[in-house]
Amino acid sequence: MAFKIIGVVGSSKAEPDVLKLAEEVGSEIAKRGAAVVCGGMTGVMEAVCRGARKEGGLTIGIIPSDKKGDANPFVQIPIVTGMGMGRNVMLVKTADVIIAVGGEFGTLSEIAHALNIGKRVIGLHTWKLERAHDKRIPNLIEVDTAKDAVDLALQSIPAQV
Amino acid sequence: MAFKIIGVVGSSKAEPDVLKLAEEVGSEIAKRGAAVVCGGMTGVMEAVCRGARKEGGLTIGIIPSDKKGDANPFVQIPIVTGMGMGRNVMLVKTADVIIAVGGEFGTLSEIAHALNIGKRVIGLHTWKLERAHDKRIPNLIEVDTAKDAVDLALQSIPAQV
Amino acid sequence: MAFKIIGVVGSSKAEPDVLKLAEEVGSEIAKRGAAVVCGGMTGVMEAVCRGARKEGGLTIGIIPSDKKGDANPFVQIPIVTGMGMGRNVMLVKTADVIIAVGGEFGTLSEIAHALNIGKRVIGLHTWKLERAHDKRIPNLIEVDTAKDAVDLALQSIPAQV
Amino acid sequence: MAFKIIGVVGSSKAEPDVLKLAEEVGSEIAKRGAAVVCGGMTGVMEAVCRGARKEGGLTIGIIPSDKKGDANPFVQIPIVTGMGMGRNVMLVKTADVIIAVGGEFGTLSEIAHALNIGKRVIGLHTWKLERAHDKRIPNLIEVDTAKDAVDLALQSIPAQV
Repeated sequence: MAFKIIGVVGSSKAEPDVLKLAEEVGSEIAKRGAAVVCGGMTGVMEAVCRGARKEGGLTIGIIPSDKKGDANPFVQIPIVTGMGMGRNVMLVKTADVIIAVGGEFGTLSEIAHALNIGKRVIGLHTWKLERAHDKRIPNLIEVDTAKDAVDLALQSIPAQV
Repeated sequence: MAFKIIGVVGSSKAEPDVLKLAEEVGSEIAKRGAAVVCGGMTGVMEAVCRGARKEGGLTIGIIPSDKKGDANPFVQIPIVTGMGMGRNVMLVKTADVIIAVGGEFGTLSEIAHALNIGKRVIGLHTWKLERAHDKRIPNLIEVDTAKDAVDLALQSIPAQV
Repeated sequence: MAFKIIGVVGSSKAEPDVLKLAEEVGSEIAKRGAAVVCGGMTGVMEAVCRGARKEGGLTIGIIPSDKKGDANPFVQIPIVTGMGMGRNVMLVKTADVIIAVGGEFGTLSEIAHALNIGKRVIGLHTWKLERAHDKRIPNLIEVDTAKDAVDLALQSIPAQV
Repeated sequence: MAFKIIGVVGSSKAEPDVLKLAEEVGSEIAKRGAAVVCGGMTGVMEAVCRGARKEGGLTIGIIPSDKKGDANPFVQIPIVTGMGMGRNVMLVKTADVIIAVGGEFGTLSEIAHALNIGKRVIGLHTWKLERAHDKRIPNLIEVDTAKDAVDLALQSIPAQV
């Protein structure tokens, strides 16, 4: 039986309040028995893994480089892709649902990939998007707290996963 | 000596005015002697290749599937990735500069990848983006005509490419 | 602290004796506290996961398709790549060492990738290889039993991993 | 209408006689009006591109790194993957048929990928392979000269490509 896996995306450099939020997200995920998958590097990725490990949660890092040792020290399962940004697509496919915390352009690409395959994205202080011809993006939902993000994430995972 | 290669990104389904714009972009690129790289499929991708071929230009399609025959009929060089959306990252890396014409979530992911690696994106009726903490995105420039887009694209290619 | 991860490669269809061997390899890995990474599908991949789960081990499947549900039922952590055979490269990079059990052409590609990056491959009834100009392949070592394969695999993992 | 594309695989370092053979293969391909796709780097990859360009042929290099400028100077169309060895799979899928000239482990992985998807490989002083359970590999054919390799390659391309 496969774990429920929540993807957390965010930048490798972030302000202290964003990092704190990411750590809370990691802890909330672990408390509910789900696994975290992230990009495995620094910043938001390290904070969410640290938070999850504090609560004994399982952490998976899908890293862009060729070296297992490049993963942050809170990653228990480094998936070594050697595919640079190409790994962002895999992260999104591996996650049952995505939580975006803050974020720069890499995070934006992950939000876009998720929306492209109909996977829900829950945002915490992340991107606002506007298409030329249609302003509604129902699968991108902004919330305010780590707890709300993780609650909504778990509700969004289909039963059959 | 490598060709100058302009990446054109856009949706596999689009309104007639967007398709017309994409075809003009293709023609303008070919007239200036550059090659087109795109996702190789239908919609904007097919329109830009059709426009380029009308003017005798070279067309490269980096396709998501495993079958060469899935490329649109105006692609001369189908690059067969079998990597689904993972191919979007390669398209962006292969292009010297990106022109986005309209676009859905796949296009948004390509814009994000380009901005993430510091590659300029010229938009024609495409996404508007707003980060939580910093509204300026100097490398994403909106223009109004195919001619302006291709002129600006060629000016944006560094001399050493 | 990251898990020690042993990659097991082999075919999606195999004879009963090869499947039995794969299952023993999985059990031996789990008994020693290491995780298994494999391609996540049927045949040798399913057998090694079944063996590992019998002993309470951790199983990771790096799957070629876009659907988590395509993983075999003994995979706890399906990494969903959507990259077809492109995932073979990631499997090899993610593993600290490779055990090849039987195998067809996909397995051969994984052996080749591993040798290409200097990663040791331990073979159980697998391919024999001969280059035109140099017959020695010191990093490909054939053994006879599952126990010997796993013992040698663990000895081959560098201390710093 | 897409070009006929012949994939040529071989090592980034090779003996002078192997490089001479690769250059002849490139020239023979160009004389027959087909395009060359290769890994775009040095050694056999550079030699085959040099040979093709001498005869005015079209050269495509699917390169592992993130930089267009890493391609050898005889590549006209560098496809920039940033995916390291992951690019080997795409090279094989993009080619209508494969010619292997000499080769180390990277080349072996490309031969294996090709055979895995039922694509013919024509060998010039390349690997000899032996499975545990079945010695016949009908899709791997060894020939002696560049001319024979290219003749057989072109005969192997299905009419519908």
